[in-house]
Amino acid sequence: MLQTTPLLKDIDTTTEEKLICQLETYTRQETEVTIGEYIFRRILQLGVKSVFGVPGDFNLRWLEQIYKVTGLNWIGCCNELNAAYAADAYAKTSQNIGVVLTTYGVGELSALNGIAGAYTEYAPVLHLVGTSAMKFKRNPKTLNIHHLAGDKKNYKKSDHYKYERIAAEFACDTASIEEDMDEACEMIDRVILNVWRNSRPGYIFLPCDLPEVKIPAKRLEQPINLSYDLHNSAEKIDRCVDEILDRMYRSRNMSVLVDDFVRKFRVENEFNQLLGKLDNKANIFSTFNAKGIVDEYKNTRFMGTYFGKFEKAVAELIEASDLVLHIGKFEHELNCGAFTFNIPSENLIILSSQYIQIGDKFDESLTMMEVLPVLIDRLETIKLSSANIYQAPAKYYEVSETSRPRVSSLHQDDLIESLNKNLKEDDVLIVETCSFLFAVPDMTMRRSKLIIQSYWASIGYALPATLGASLA
Amino acid sequence: MLQTTPLLKDIDTTTEEKLICQLETYTRQETEVTIGEYIFRRILQLGVKSVFGVPGDFNLRWLEQIYKVTGLNWIGCCNELNAAYAADAYAKTSQNIGVVLTTYGVGELSALNGIAGAYTEYAPVLHLVGTSAMKFKRNPKTLNIHHLAGDKKNYKKSDHYKYERIAAEFACDTASIEEDMDEACEMIDRVILNVWRNSRPGYIFLPCDLPEVKIPAKRLEQPINLSYDLHNSAEKIDRCVDEILDRMYRSRNMSVLVDDFVRKFRVENEFNQLLGKLDNKANIFSTFNAKGIVDEYKNTRFMGTYFGKFEKAVAELIEASDLVLHIGKFEHELNCGAFTFNIPSENLIILSSQYIQIGDKFDESLTMMEVLPVLIDRLETIKLSSANIYQAPAKYYEVSETSRPRVSSLHQDDLIESLNKNLKEDDVLIVETCSFLFAVPDMTMRRSKLIIQSYWASIGYALPATLGASLA
Repeated sequence: MLQTTPLLKDIDTTTEEKLICQLETYTRQETEVTIGEYIFRRILQLGVKSVFGVPGDFNLRWLEQIYKVTGLNWIGCCNELNAAYAADAYAKTSQNIGVVLTTYGVGELSALNGIAGAYTEYAPVLHLVGTSAMKFKRNPKTLNIHHLAGDKKNYKKSDHYKYERIAAEFACDTASIEEDMDEACEMIDRVILNVWRNSRPGYIFLPCDLPEVKIPAKRLEQPINLSYDLHNSAEKIDRCVDEILDRMYRSRNMSVLVDDFVRKFRVENEFNQLLGKLDNKANIFSTFNAKGIVDEYKNTRFMGTYFGKFEKAVAELIEASDLVLHIGKFEHELNCGAFTFNIPSENLIILSSQYIQIGDKFDESLTMMEVLPVLIDRLETIKLSSANIYQAPAKYYEVSETSRPRVSSLHQDDLIESLNKNLKEDDVLIVETCSFLFAVPDMTMRRSKLIIQSYWASIGYALPATLGASLA
Repeated sequence: MLQTTPLLKDIDTTTEEKLICQLETYTRQETEVTIGEYIFRRILQLGVKSVFGVPGDFNLRWLEQIYKVTGLNWIGCCNELNAAYAADAYAKTSQNIGVVLTTYGVGELSALNGIAGAYTEYAPVLHLVGTSAMKFKRNPKTLNIHHLAGDKKNYKKSDHYKYERIAAEFACDTASIEEDMDEACEMIDRVILNVWRNSRPGYIFLPCDLPEVKIPAKRLEQPINLSYDLHNSAEKIDRCVDEILDRMYRSRNMSVLVDDFVRKFRVENEFNQLLGKLDNKANIFSTFNAKGIVDEYKNTRFMGTYFGKFEKAVAELIEASDLVLHIGKFEHELNCGAFTFNIPSENLIILSSQYIQIGDKFDESLTMMEVLPVLIDRLETIKLSSANIYQAPAKYYEVSETSRPRVSSLHQDDLIESLNKNLKEDDVLIVETCSFLFAVPDMTMRRSKLIIQSYWASIGYALPATLGASLA
């Protein structure tokens, strides 16, 4: 069952407004579009403005059609890995979909490390690949065309779908277009929706002899309904919320730990509504990756970045809570202090986009996208006890400065202080996988976007990511 | 059955000489080596001097051990794709193995396009990958360490072997090292041998908690026997040679078409011996990729580069032969004039590293490595008729210059002429996948090495390839 949930109202409205504007311009023109143009128009309908990539023999005919789609810009990159990084950062910054377009074999494989990164980091990147022609795919002869990885034997026909199988290892969905255009449109729309829903890469493979095939333009009048697949009954959600509320009302020292899936699964508004209803009765912590969701200056109950053993004073505070609401948990080495988080499960409620966990009770049929709106709606602030009042612990670099003599006039701490001072609300901070990445938990951040790759951790990400973020 | 064939005598002698020198230095030192050092010493024993790559968390402990191996140099590159290209060109230029070393996930996937290219182009590249620790691989907990691509669900344990499965798509052999060091050594030696034999990439995956495990140094005293797996009986080979000789003796207008597997499977010496015994009684042609094997200035029967419809005058000559000996056939789009070779199969004998074809009779149990030495040995020159004497056709750019008015003072033809004039014997010519690549068939080349990527055709190859070729 598909629903447009209340929590998506803002996004839907925005998308629809943009959409009407695009479609008005568009429907005046033609009754047919090519399948190549259809894909670009679907992307534009989402509000995406840029397609990153590198041209190649197998995508040229497709790429030619982007020029018809006013408002969608081709951002030619120097290599595919950087194009993928740019699309990843575009997605993370815009919280929309990032798009990268490459050519068969040499292009898509060059981008693969970036796509695997987006898969691992939950960045919704749509990878468009122009592939070998159907006439070659279907020809029984050997015909070793360029960019087609050889078979085990040079005289045997190679597998034209090898790259598609590899791509599927790092994709939530893939569409391998063939001549049936009804099926093609269904698959295209499905992949785009799944990329958005799963916040992970998906692929559309379009053979190079198909981009100009015409389809009815009418299909574009119905936009893709960007919404989560929420299928639980109100009763089931209510029972879950009952349990959460019961734990919250009984708690005497509650903490909220905000995590990065709040951003990646687009529930920042809901999270902020929840904070409002908590009315300063809980202490607030952030994980490393979630920094920037909470304004650490304005929120007086913000106690610091929970980074396990690397920020001991912060860890002691949150681990002393009798209840931690871990919202949007994103589980990986650097985001849990190298596996040193230590909150007893009986004191823990986890709200994730993939499951809900209350104590030891784990339910992967429920998600925070369903539960949060009901929780916010039903929460009675008056029934909450106020958690212990603490002073936020000093940052690691503040307390330890005396024990770390400065060896040069320019020190990492200076960069922390400079960024703390100069970063404004809604700024985008992009940090390479480098020494300073490990200083980010020590920063004091306003509400802003932190673009990092601390899980995939592929060095070289930040520069192309800056291109992507700048265009988002 | 393994044999050291006569055709490999030169190579074996050279390798053994180098080996004795290395081992003398070496055995004076220790009775044990680490498995990490063992791999580097095996590489050095082949005569390889350079290992290209990029350091990373998962290969640092392995990489540290290269310093003990005097004579083997670490060539740190700025990114893994370029390191793979460099190793590919090192292999092509040295006709030895090229080696690239990367780190888990982010590194090996960044190199993948280069490895797929080496697979497609038959370049023997050994890819060494430092992988996640056995303690993490074996741990049942989720433990999402960095560089480990996430599972479908963030809370589930990821597959530590996903990249190894992908690598196997572009490898002739792979070794995934575990704690059993006897097995590890067997696998390492087997992969190195298979890379050499198949002239294609192979992988050694070494978990990052194993490089320092000790093994007996004695194993290094027995070098890897670099030889093809030749298993046919003398009788079978003789029957094949009977047929070839019969066709050759009956021919009145024989041509030899030299192709790139002659170089890739190291039978240039044998090919030249065959040319000697033919004693100018056949016309000689080269494919595009094989240019540089025959000295086009010195060989008076050299008629040109067979490039199908793109060099019509040359095509007419070879296609008029009553017998074409196609030696070392490498079948792909650009090497067969975009599938416009047109020699009737009844006039064709193909000697390949993967099969022998006489007319329509195809036998994939036989190879040119077995057949050529016997053919050379048994060929009686006196029984051959002399083929028609032709004048070598003018080059495409020579005949068509009048119809292609010069639009600038510097023209592609000038580059052809300059290279023709200045390239010396044994020079290495590296050509990018660019317009000029299509002019190479028009060049007149001495015996030299042509380093191109005309099948995989990944733009960006030539610059890092120049690094690799320079160090070969």
